[in-house]
Amino acid sequence: MAQSWSFLDICESDFRPLVVIELAKSAKAETIEWFTKRIVDKKAKGGAQLLVKPLLTEKEGENIYLVGASHLRLLLGAETVGLVKECNDNSMRTFTYSSRKTFKGFADDNHDFLTMAECQYIIKHELENLRAKDEKMIPGYPQAKLYPGKSIVRRLLTSGILVQIFPLQDREELKKLCHSWYGRVKVGCQPLDEIRSYFGETIALYFAFLEYFTFALIPMAVIGIPYYVFAWEDFDKYVMFAIFNLLWSTVMLEVWKRICATMTYRWGTLLMKRQFEEPRPGFHGVLGINPITGREEPVYSSIKRQLRIYLVSLPFVCFCLYFSLYVMMIYFDLEEWALDYHEENDSNFSSLMLFVPSIIYAVVIEIMNRIYRYAAEFLTSWENHRLESSYQNHLILKVLVFNFLNCFASLFYIAFVLFDMHLLRQSLATLLITSQILNQLAESLLPYWLQKRYNKRMKKRLCSPKIDKDLSLAEQVNLEKEMGTYCGTFDDYLELFLQFGYVSLFSCVYPLAAVFAVLNNITEIYSDALKMCNVYKRPFAEPTANIGVWQLAFEIMSVISVVTNCILIGMSPQVNALFSDSKMEHILTVALVEHLLLAIKFTITFVIQDKPRDIQIKLAKLEFESLEALKRQICF
Amino acid sequence: MAQSWSFLDICESDFRPLVVIELAKSAKAETIEWFTKRIVDKKAKGGAQLLVKPLLTEKEGENIYLVGASHLRLLLGAETVGLVKECNDNSMRTFTYSSRKTFKGFADDNHDFLTMAECQYIIKHELENLRAKDEKMIPGYPQAKLYPGKSIVRRLLTSGILVQIFPLQDREELKKLCHSWYGRVKVGCQPLDEIRSYFGETIALYFAFLEYFTFALIPMAVIGIPYYVFAWEDFDKYVMFAIFNLLWSTVMLEVWKRICATMTYRWGTLLMKRQFEEPRPGFHGVLGINPITGREEPVYSSIKRQLRIYLVSLPFVCFCLYFSLYVMMIYFDLEEWALDYHEENDSNFSSLMLFVPSIIYAVVIEIMNRIYRYAAEFLTSWENHRLESSYQNHLILKVLVFNFLNCFASLFYIAFVLFDMHLLRQSLATLLITSQILNQLAESLLPYWLQKRYNKRMKKRLCSPKIDKDLSLAEQVNLEKEMGTYCGTFDDYLELFLQFGYVSLFSCVYPLAAVFAVLNNITEIYSDALKMCNVYKRPFAEPTANIGVWQLAFEIMSVISVVTNCILIGMSPQVNALFSDSKMEHILTVALVEHLLLAIKFTITFVIQDKPRDIQIKLAKLEFESLEALKRQICF
Repeated sequence: MAQSWSFLDICESDFRPLVVIELAKSAKAETIEWFTKRIVDKKAKGGAQLLVKPLLTEKEGENIYLVGASHLRLLLGAETVGLVKECNDNSMRTFTYSSRKTFKGFADDNHDFLTMAECQYIIKHELENLRAKDEKMIPGYPQAKLYPGKSIVRRLLTSGILVQIFPLQDREELKKLCHSWYGRVKVGCQPLDEIRSYFGETIALYFAFLEYFTFALIPMAVIGIPYYVFAWEDFDKYVMFAIFNLLWSTVMLEVWKRICATMTYRWGTLLMKRQFEEPRPGFHGVLGINPITGREEPVYSSIKRQLRIYLVSLPFVCFCLYFSLYVMMIYFDLEEWALDYHEENDSNFSSLMLFVPSIIYAVVIEIMNRIYRYAAEFLTSWENHRLESSYQNHLILKVLVFNFLNCFASLFYIAFVLFDMHLLRQSLATLLITSQILNQLAESLLPYWLQKRYNKRMKKRLCSPKIDKDLSLAEQVNLEKEMGTYCGTFDDYLELFLQFGYVSLFSCVYPLAAVFAVLNNITEIYSDALKMCNVYKRPFAEPTANIGVWQLAFEIMSVISVVTNCILIGMSPQVNALFSDSKMEHILTVALVEHLLLAIKFTITFVIQDKPRDIQIKLAKLEFESLEALKRQICF
Repeated sequence: MAQSWSFLDICESDFRPLVVIELAKSAKAETIEWFTKRIVDKKAKGGAQLLVKPLLTEKEGENIYLVGASHLRLLLGAETVGLVKECNDNSMRTFTYSSRKTFKGFADDNHDFLTMAECQYIIKHELENLRAKDEKMIPGYPQAKLYPGKSIVRRLLTSGILVQIFPLQDREELKKLCHSWYGRVKVGCQPLDEIRSYFGETIALYFAFLEYFTFALIPMAVIGIPYYVFAWEDFDKYVMFAIFNLLWSTVMLEVWKRICATMTYRWGTLLMKRQFEEPRPGFHGVLGINPITGREEPVYSSIKRQLRIYLVSLPFVCFCLYFSLYVMMIYFDLEEWALDYHEENDSNFSSLMLFVPSIIYAVVIEIMNRIYRYAAEFLTSWENHRLESSYQNHLILKVLVFNFLNCFASLFYIAFVLFDMHLLRQSLATLLITSQILNQLAESLLPYWLQKRYNKRMKKRLCSPKIDKDLSLAEQVNLEKEMGTYCGTFDDYLELFLQFGYVSLFSCVYPLAAVFAVLNNITEIYSDALKMCNVYKRPFAEPTANIGVWQLAFEIMSVISVVTNCILIGMSPQVNALFSDSKMEHILTVALVEHLLLAIKFTITFVIQDKPRDIQIKLAKLEFESLEALKRQICF
């Protein structure tokens, strides 16, 4: 292996820019020199052994650098990050440089073996793993302290010297992708494999889930329409519909796991080994010995963090939930007051007043959501989690609980305190349709407007006299660095999650919800695609094997929906009439049916295997091979 | 490594018998010669490279062989099975021969580095992995077919040529163990580490769980007594008691996982890698290619198995459950009839008749349980599972469901159909106490009687004139081979599981159950210990990291108990009186409390980490080290 690294010197001729580094305009020359030297330095000397070229721009004082790497360097990097690729015998295996000839499509001169997104991911990984050796601080910035093993890029980012790192777009590829994704009107699926090779697995999985979820809602929508049209008050049939929905949503979530496993197996991420997680950028602490790595690095007492979580964050979240409920109660009071007012003086003004409480409530909810989101982010980062994954989980938990309450508390109140099914149906429809229209407007109009502005700027530039290859690159970089940064799939999943709640929680009351959800999601796919391709900077690819905590969130929602639907049906006048003589029997029957449904649900979850059989066999085969290899190593 | 295996020739001088092989009296000389040759043969020639010595007995025609191995051979075997041992730096690591010097207590002449149980486990593993090479059948038995890769020992066992393989007892160690375990009256814990090093991890974990479970029941018992004595009909306090019980049982099960992890980390089994599972002895099929290993071996279509499970086993189990319920209904009819009869002609005979239904029912249940157990075993083996673990899981599931219904159906019927809390309390007490007394009698008297008989026989032998070392070994082997075979911990866990059901399912009705459970378990520890040491052959040690499917079973029971207790309390006259005006509110409150308790329960389960922090750190450290080693391998 040591040999291959020294080969690198030879083939550093052709430079293909992959990643852009933007340093602050005020960055000192000394710092820039040190940083670029570390990037270019040999691996043996602690460098990243990448290629760096400054970007020549018209503007004064801009410090923009392009990073690339030789083909060989990228292949070695692919081994370091543990990329999984398809072999000639159609099995997926972890790529190693020594076994490179066994991989499908590999040839020493084939530079397309790694996709551009993979190359950029490798470079990002190498840059982030550029670690301080004996530097005590960043040269030129005595206040930006370093310790051996600290990631240099992270320190540069937190101290503001490094503005951003982002991967370059591939104009041609992007055009092709746009065309096959949303460029033509067509019935059928999205080009998921192409999305994956351009944007990476995390984003491709979101679109795959969005598409799957939409298709899965179609049966509900199709059955829901005749129910809505013909059987509005026929309760028995609603029971059947609700039970179908519950079982269907369970099966759907289980089948998604299988589809996801098949897809990520093909993409190689199902087999990819988890890398050892480094502390997240914002993590701070006193310098100590990490008990796991044995390295000197900042440590932060877990007890202190627990105290912060349980003594500050938890009470704060509880207070916010309480406050949100309190606001809801005020809304219901206002609503009642407006109704009374309208009845007393029946005028145009008073009928306008009827809408005021709803509008105020909607605005207040929106404001609360935003304030809470900031507070949650602040609190979670104050909790000082060592790992990004743990930070994300705590943040998602906080935001999910609050959003769930904000969206559904009023519906729960109407259903289980006011017992007003008519109002419930009406509120549900209003909430669902309004939120979808608002979201669509924000997500479609905004991209459209931005797209327009972008095109205009593009045209203006192209009219300028100097158009040659090198400048058009500078132009491209300048354009891209001003674009917004895609903040991850959190908000997109959250929207789907709340939609799933509207569809499933009260499905026995409003069967039309699925229809609206399907209609919304079809346009959602297009607007999200537009957004990804035109509005934001290209994000770094992030390998992932599943949709993570969202699978759990959707499953919990589907359990809650079993409970709500059972209680709703149990409280309905028709069911009440059946058990008019015995209160006890009524309770017991409702409880029995609910627990039976839950039992069936868990059985379905258990019986449907998470991975299809052929994937299971392939995984078992790999495991068997590694065990055999180990045995051979021991015995002979 | 190849070197170390050839060293083995040198040090085959001292022979310590570890495992006994008993062949059928009718076994052909040709077969015996072939089999022993294969055992002794060099590893490179496909043998096991162990030592074999025939046992000279007085009796004619007996084919008993003793198997041992040199110290070096055992160390190499320890590497093959992946034994985990403590290093000099107090961390646990997988033993390898090349790194042997870094392990605590290792010295080339220290033969106690591996415990006798570990040596026997290694020998068992090597014997079972003795595989056919080019033999088409067992020499001398043309009907006993072989194919390349088939385990020879398994084929010999299924064709009846091999009667049994069992590990020898270590008389001295056993005596020491007996003394410290139950030889003296003492307050305190069992010598779990000693039990583990003599009987292996599976059995030690059972005793650890039994002890833990007993200690965990003590708080419930202590709180239960005053409740029973002072507050028999005070319902509010029962609610508190029930809630305490639910939370306590959740915490208890979670804490057990932590204790279990700490214990198995110390024993090394927490880190032990799962070996690739071979087909179980009874598995049959047509010769085909295993898609995982690529080897030629019997394969059996998974669809056929699924069909057998869902079309035969599942309906059969359902029918048995239905039949059991039907018998229960007959019992209740009989009971009513006996009561009527007693009221009509109030005589001595009629009051005797009152007990007849219960007795008949108890006997019928016992008979049904036994028949069902055989049927379940037959069906599960007919389902033809490839792996022992999958066979065990299907068997346990079948038996658990039936036993659960048999034990608790009548109680559920009394509680939720008859609504008779007084009868429930009475039945619960009767069932619990009777089953415990019967179990104790069967488990204590039987061992005692067997122990007596054993001692007598021992004495008779010792009075015979020839007493020298070699003969006493033959005597020991002859005695041990006649002893019963321990069939695993299934029945012991099942007993505990049902007891947990009695204690928790209706805890708000009968708080004294925990007291009886504690009393029973204290004697249970002693009688089980007696049984292990004196009644059965020594079992082979089985490394395990947890109590497996039983953890899940106990957790499910504790979820069910939340539901039953909530409904019981909800139906009580006191609670009914509270909600006399609103039926709806009553249902909702009960449902709300139940789901709240379940939510709290799941939150507790989630918040309490499965492994203590120090174990987590140690595991993370090992993982980090292996990742670093991998990286070094790649980079330099």
